[in-house]
Amino acid sequence: MPDIGKLLWPQSVAVVGASSDTHGLRGRILEILRSHPFAGKIYPVSRSASEVQGLKAYPSVDALPQPADLAVLIVPAQLIPAELERCGKAGIKAAVILSSGFAEEGEVGRRMQHDIAATAQRYDMAVAGPNVEGFSNIAAALCANFSPASDKSAGPLMPDQPLGRGQVSVISQSGGLGFAFIDRARPRNFKFRYIVTTGNEAALEISDFLDYMLDEGETDVFLLLVEAVKTPEKFKRVAEKALKAGKPLIVGKIGQTEPGRRAVASHTAALAGEQAAYRAVFDRYGLIEGRDFDEMLDVAAGFLACGDRLPVGKRVGICTASGGAGIWMADACAAVGLDVPVLDAATRAALDVHIPSYGTSQNPVDSTAQGVQKLGYAQFARLVAQSPSVDGVIVVITARRSAFLEADLPKLKELSRECAKPVMMWTYTLPAERTIEILNEAGNPLFTTAHGCASAMQAMADYRARRERLLRPAAVAASPAQAREKVHAMLTQGGPVLSEYRAREVLSAYGIGSDDAATLVQSRNEAAAAAQAIGRPVAVKVQSAAIPHKTEAGAVLLNLAGADAVCAAYDRVLAAAKRYAPKARIDGVLVQPMAPPGREVILGINRDRTWGLLLMVGLGGVLVEALGDVALAPVPLDADAAAALIAQLKGAQLFGQYRKMPSADVEALAKLMAALSQFAADHADDIDMIDLNPVIVHAQGQGVSVVDALIVKRDNERVERRGAAE
Amino acid sequence: MPDIGKLLWPQSVAVVGASSDTHGLRGRILEILRSHPFAGKIYPVSRSASEVQGLKAYPSVDALPQPADLAVLIVPAQLIPAELERCGKAGIKAAVILSSGFAEEGEVGRRMQHDIAATAQRYDMAVAGPNVEGFSNIAAALCANFSPASDKSAGPLMPDQPLGRGQVSVISQSGGLGFAFIDRARPRNFKFRYIVTTGNEAALEISDFLDYMLDEGETDVFLLLVEAVKTPEKFKRVAEKALKAGKPLIVGKIGQTEPGRRAVASHTAALAGEQAAYRAVFDRYGLIEGRDFDEMLDVAAGFLACGDRLPVGKRVGICTASGGAGIWMADACAAVGLDVPVLDAATRAALDVHIPSYGTSQNPVDSTAQGVQKLGYAQFARLVAQSPSVDGVIVVITARRSAFLEADLPKLKELSRECAKPVMMWTYTLPAERTIEILNEAGNPLFTTAHGCASAMQAMADYRARRERLLRPAAVAASPAQAREKVHAMLTQGGPVLSEYRAREVLSAYGIGSDDAATLVQSRNEAAAAAQAIGRPVAVKVQSAAIPHKTEAGAVLLNLAGADAVCAAYDRVLAAAKRYAPKARIDGVLVQPMAPPGREVILGINRDRTWGLLLMVGLGGVLVEALGDVALAPVPLDADAAAALIAQLKGAQLFGQYRKMPSADVEALAKLMAALSQFAADHADDIDMIDLNPVIVHAQGQGVSVVDALIVKRDNERVERRGAAE
Repeated sequence: MPDIGKLLWPQSVAVVGASSDTHGLRGRILEILRSHPFAGKIYPVSRSASEVQGLKAYPSVDALPQPADLAVLIVPAQLIPAELERCGKAGIKAAVILSSGFAEEGEVGRRMQHDIAATAQRYDMAVAGPNVEGFSNIAAALCANFSPASDKSAGPLMPDQPLGRGQVSVISQSGGLGFAFIDRARPRNFKFRYIVTTGNEAALEISDFLDYMLDEGETDVFLLLVEAVKTPEKFKRVAEKALKAGKPLIVGKIGQTEPGRRAVASHTAALAGEQAAYRAVFDRYGLIEGRDFDEMLDVAAGFLACGDRLPVGKRVGICTASGGAGIWMADACAAVGLDVPVLDAATRAALDVHIPSYGTSQNPVDSTAQGVQKLGYAQFARLVAQSPSVDGVIVVITARRSAFLEADLPKLKELSRECAKPVMMWTYTLPAERTIEILNEAGNPLFTTAHGCASAMQAMADYRARRERLLRPAAVAASPAQAREKVHAMLTQGGPVLSEYRAREVLSAYGIGSDDAATLVQSRNEAAAAAQAIGRPVAVKVQSAAIPHKTEAGAVLLNLAGADAVCAAYDRVLAAAKRYAPKARIDGVLVQPMAPPGREVILGINRDRTWGLLLMVGLGGVLVEALGDVALAPVPLDADAAAALIAQLKGAQLFGQYRKMPSADVEALAKLMAALSQFAADHADDIDMIDLNPVIVHAQGQGVSVVDALIVKRDNERVERRGAAE
Repeated sequence: MPDIGKLLWPQSVAVVGASSDTHGLRGRILEILRSHPFAGKIYPVSRSASEVQGLKAYPSVDALPQPADLAVLIVPAQLIPAELERCGKAGIKAAVILSSGFAEEGEVGRRMQHDIAATAQRYDMAVAGPNVEGFSNIAAALCANFSPASDKSAGPLMPDQPLGRGQVSVISQSGGLGFAFIDRARPRNFKFRYIVTTGNEAALEISDFLDYMLDEGETDVFLLLVEAVKTPEKFKRVAEKALKAGKPLIVGKIGQTEPGRRAVASHTAALAGEQAAYRAVFDRYGLIEGRDFDEMLDVAAGFLACGDRLPVGKRVGICTASGGAGIWMADACAAVGLDVPVLDAATRAALDVHIPSYGTSQNPVDSTAQGVQKLGYAQFARLVAQSPSVDGVIVVITARRSAFLEADLPKLKELSRECAKPVMMWTYTLPAERTIEILNEAGNPLFTTAHGCASAMQAMADYRARRERLLRPAAVAASPAQAREKVHAMLTQGGPVLSEYRAREVLSAYGIGSDDAATLVQSRNEAAAAAQAIGRPVAVKVQSAAIPHKTEAGAVLLNLAGADAVCAAYDRVLAAAKRYAPKARIDGVLVQPMAPPGREVILGINRDRTWGLLLMVGLGGVLVEALGDVALAPVPLDADAAAALIAQLKGAQLFGQYRKMPSADVEALAKLMAALSQFAADHADDIDMIDLNPVIVHAQGQGVSVVDALIVKRDNERVERRGAAE
């Protein structure tokens, strides 16, 4: 692994392709670089000019007085491979390739990217790009980019009165969007550390920079902008590292919709993964997804200002002097899933002393203008924060004028020091600059939208809870080596599809569906005998790898009782199967007890092209078919995580008492999901798809019935063919 | 009706309770009033001071040199009734009551509000409040309020370079939120006309001010902030007037959630109506709902800038020079329901000339930085707008620097003049002030969030389409007078609940369920005969007003064939009914053919306490029960509107081909809904609830079956009792 420190912390920078024309990008980058007090050396490299923007220029990177630490390359794409090679030979250990025209442009460009990657590896160079806007190391005042956001005129790199004590870094696959974060956060006085854009990621990718910054330990909050993750395993490893370190990853995932995906494909030459799979992975590693800049910056503001003071739950107290604004904030809180409970009697009594009769202490606590005038915001917030009914406080203010807050500042600071619960502010007017400074000094994050404030509180509570849950050692017991080996042996034999009875056999090694007695028979008499042994109504189903959808083929009959009915059914399903697929090899007929009633669930394992095998669960019927109400998670997961996944379903309440049915055995379903996920994880190389459809979830304590099963093996030859073609 | 013009356009203003202490509200209001160049006279009225803030003060409103046009009252609540009386006697024709402590505080306060309303009526005075923050008439530079947003220091009342040619007015029940609109819109240079806060609405309410402003005709876009509508019929009438005039009403509805509603109750002493009912009414009159300030202001910006150039459809072309930002915008468009189609070949060919090979013309159209540098934004947007595939254009820009747009300004203005499609801008960095001015001059609204820009485009397209649909004469034929009279006569007889056979009889006068043969019988023999006449399997159901939920009582048996089965069933249901309700009067047993299969739908009429009778439709089963997937509309509505309502259901696609079922007869369902809504509208005074559950919708062309029916009459005595108690 090359040293990313050489790239982000160079002592000297060569700008290859630098120009004196500051209207063009080749001039802009040098102009911006020099406009900030970066302490290192800057060498323009130009084939045509001996002086660029008043600096002595060098004809080539190998003509520099000493090898530069970092080369910034902005020459036409076709010259890049040779130029990078020259950098390597000259002993330069890091490069940023700004030029466009690579993989986004077709085969030739893709080959050039492969060359770049190979050269980077050969010389152990840290290479970012191509097709990036560059990066900024704010602490070093180094802006190696051509973003308007880095213009000196856009404002200082470092605020006088930063929000909180922490630093925030941006890592973005998109150049324009990456630098827009610092631009848009400037009025909020965030302390940025790095803004890095990674573009086509020929060599270094988002995960590499994130890994470096986590090791460095100076960044407290990360803003990631992702089009498509290049190396999923690396991303997962680094995301877990961030989770363990308690450094929140706030992620914007672009290309979530069909027109967005269309543009991703043309833009960075990487196919966007399916959004649901991304979300499943984000959930698994505690990433916080934001819809847009403002939502992401709002969440970052909460973490920056509150540091370790994350809410232990979702209960919010709202302080307001405007009734209407308090209502709107309560609506915003409820909309994102926060609770706004009526406060306890002791807290209400303490508040009522200060509130006129036309206000209210219930929550939202409306002190009225008179009440807050007497109390001050700090004292008001303190009284509410002391309530055992709330985990955090939101104060509704008008930040148009700063005088009142100015007077309150010492008490606000004291409150931030003493109160373990976050106290955040929403202003319904636009804030004066001075107000922002005051609140930054006080340690209270200020939000200009109710939704943003509520989202931040929700994200912080959720992050804390999820982190605790995710860091708990997962109760995934390693499966016995014997079962693993047995299944592996079974999976490497036979054709690509395992029909139900074979799938059951394989799955039962992991205890999946093993309670469900089912007998494979080869004659009507055997069928009748099997049915009699079962002793209650049965189903009969033809077994053939060539007929995976048995019901469609008419090869299933249900609810049969008595020898005659079973024998007749045996004949009928076989006849139907032969009509449907005359050449199919038939393995026999499965005789199986009818499952007792319960909720019908679809359970499956599917392969996502980016993230590999994912477990899927959904409530059978219209909820899946009309609304796509399914939940996904990477495998393996333990029963607790499976239960959390079930709770994500829109129709989850159907597992509770419903119509005349008692509550369902969700615990047994969760255990089944955990076992299936373990099976999938153990045999990820051998399988592409598992379908348990339906699974019937019985009443509490009564377990589940796996009514049907199908396994499609991974076609490793096809995988290799596809790999070769890419 | 008093003259609201006297209130909004006074020549002279008395401030009753004025003070020299500008830290308090009684001083602030006078200070703000005088800080703007209002041309009229200002009279401080003070019982204690002869001079207030350097102005001669008067001891009472009847001591003024001439009657003031408007009195602004800011004295303690208990003094208000007498003070208002004094104003009336003195010939003052308008008053704004700022004081708090009325209906929000209980019985005494409520009585004082009644007094205010009575005094206002007696003297024909236009009275706003109590419990308001006042109002601003921007055109007259009259700021009769104490909002920090009206501070001279907050900025000019009127921008130099306003956005568009139109004016916007705010009417808000909440004071703080009302004035926050002008505060937050100031950087965008909206031209405001009025900001009015209506508070407790003892006399004038939102609808009255809206009505006045519509008649005046100077306001083009309205921002409404609603907690609870006071007089629903008036609101509907005025909303329809706005729709006809093409003046969009952008509404924020606060108190939508349980904690929000809790605060509404304490705040303005009006119980918030159910949110779903509000939304149904908003939909019916084309109101545009916004989640927060920014969403509402974004939509307003679109209408202000684009005037009549509303998109004729939902197809958007996106111009961008940043790939990532284009993707994010495409995602934002798709998320709000806009289409981003691939452009037609001719447009793509025209664009491709200007775009480097690593850009794309598909849509989002990514010109790359180089491409836009050559083309300019105006020409770029023009090429895309010319595509027959799009109805509007969104240009993604970075508005951090203005120079490039400055050079483009003449062409942008030309484009706005010549192009009938809206061209809107999203900047992913924060805009420079000069950029906002340039774009305002050009007539292109600028948005700082992708979601806001997309929402505005969507709202404009939706408003146009909905307005055309709503203004089409509704195909609601007046029902024959004979049917109306017959039904009215039937509804005024008998008890409060109409059991199925009676409900069917009544409804059939409107053609509802009249195809469904059903016979009331009084003996087993009659039952058998009826079943035989029907000639296919039947259901038998006990009929009794005391047993509205027949199935629960065991008083229904289904799917019976043959005389024996029918006779046995007759006995069983009667026995069950007698066990369930021994004293119930039983009208007989209904024998009814089993409906052929189809989609099960729940159809009903329910009474909302604010909005009266609403039609409800939902897909039976889990979608209604687990997800509450129902749609509501005020009655009556025609079959087209009913079809639009059906399309709103989350599970609407289940009416299409689903599993092995052909498409459903949605047309017949829509006709049934129209007939039911007409029935409800005709007899709104007589009924409280109608339940057709289930209705079975058969395959296309096969119609619907009304399987069960129940009517609950309005208890007019109870209504009167409740009215008296309030």
